Amino acid sequence: MTEPLLGRSARKRATILSAGRTLFLGNGYQGTSMDQVAATAEVSKQTVYKHFGDKQELLLAIVNDALDATVTPFLSRIAELGDTTDLDEDLTTLAEDYLRAVLQEPVVQLRRLVVGEANRVPALAQLYYEQAPARALAAFADCFARLHGRDLLSVPEPAVAAEHFAFLVVGRCIDQALFCGGPQVLGGVDVGRHVRAGVRVFLAGYQPRSG
Amino acid sequence: MTEPLLGRSARKRATILSAGRTLFLGNGYQGTSMDQVAATAEVSKQTVYKHFGDKQELLLAIVNDALDATVTPFLSRIAELGDTTDLDEDLTTLAEDYLRAVLQEPVVQLRRLVVGEANRVPALAQLYYEQAPARALAAFADCFARLHGRDLLSVPEPAVAAEHFAFLVVGRCIDQALFCGGPQVLGGVDVGRHVRAGVRVFLAGYQPRSG
Repeated sequence: MTEPLLGRSARKRATILSAGRTLFLGNGYQGTSMDQVAATAEVSKQTVYKHFGDKQELLLAIVNDALDATVTPFLSRIAELGDTTDLDEDLTTLAEDYLRAVLQEPVVQLRRLVVGEANRVPALAQLYYEQAPARALAAFADCFARLHGRDLLSVPEPAVAAEHFAFLVVGRCIDQALFCGGPQVLGGVDVGRHVRAGVRVFLAGYQPRSG
Repeated sequence: MTEPLLGRSARKRATILSAGRTLFLGNGYQGTSMDQVAATAEVSKQTVYKHFGDKQELLLAIVNDALDATVTPFLSRIAELGDTTDLDEDLTTLAEDYLRAVLQEPVVQLRRLVVGEANRVPALAQLYYEQAPARALAAFADCFARLHGRDLLSVPEPAVAAEHFAFLVVGRCIDQALFCGGPQVLGGVDVGRHVRAGVRVFLAGYQPRSG
């Protein structure tokens, strides 16, 4: 008897998340009330509060859902890059997919929403940073430390090299996307050419001297 | 008789800008009405509308004011870098000041405000991008093209090199500041060390082969 009940609860949770997401992105975080979320999800306000203690918790769950679908899969791919046998090629392919992932419209829209609330709800923005950009940077740092150990890169400070790589590849695009939109930026970029230029400078800075 | 009147008008304008800035940053763009701006500035609503046609125009004027005080002075310094006789040194000094400038709290707070409205007022965000990051990138591109002409750099694509330089130096910091705050990020960074690491990778990628 518990299984169908759990299923129903999970479905309600998903419905509330979807309603919250639509309302937050359409009307802003401030412009959305938990009453409206309940009405749009066609559940009682009590049900909303049973699943999400407050509006901030709801926003955080929406953000986590989006990150699970976009950023999280990259963490294992970044880890695998540590075992590469063709660094230039594999770094370039990963960088291309990473650029496309961070420019997806849902990712950009949620970044905007969280950034827009950072003046008033600093804890939320800080949590987002730790769960998204900081985790990707940490994964790159681990990977570059491993490639340093394998003598494929010369990376005395893996955390610094991770920053350099990430922002050579996605820096201008992700910054511009916050203002001009992810698809608009992606539409104006030759991804292959853009990524190769960034990877070239990264390798010029971090490839071991041969000989 | 016109001079004192103009002076009074300019003072009123400054008072309205200051009131709008305080309210926008405290309550958000959506959470602020032109009535509140008029009340805080202690002027009539008609006076507010005489100076600024609507709320969007007021926000844009506030943003322009902040940029004039922070980013604009850098454009001439970037241009002067084209005449450098000690590239490594001058590039590093400029980069340090640039990093400190973009992490100033008023700049970060206004970026957050504009980004937070980008889903609903895309034209405003686009205008901000063109007037701030895009102008700095264009100035760096012109400067690097000149240094290429002087054989101090090898920069076949100045716009790409400008992106690489800017985001090697300020990329992670400016991204993190949107979420965690400018002074907080600046407090956690050894500016000299951070900038030298970015400049080293940039020069590795763009210094002409000697010999």
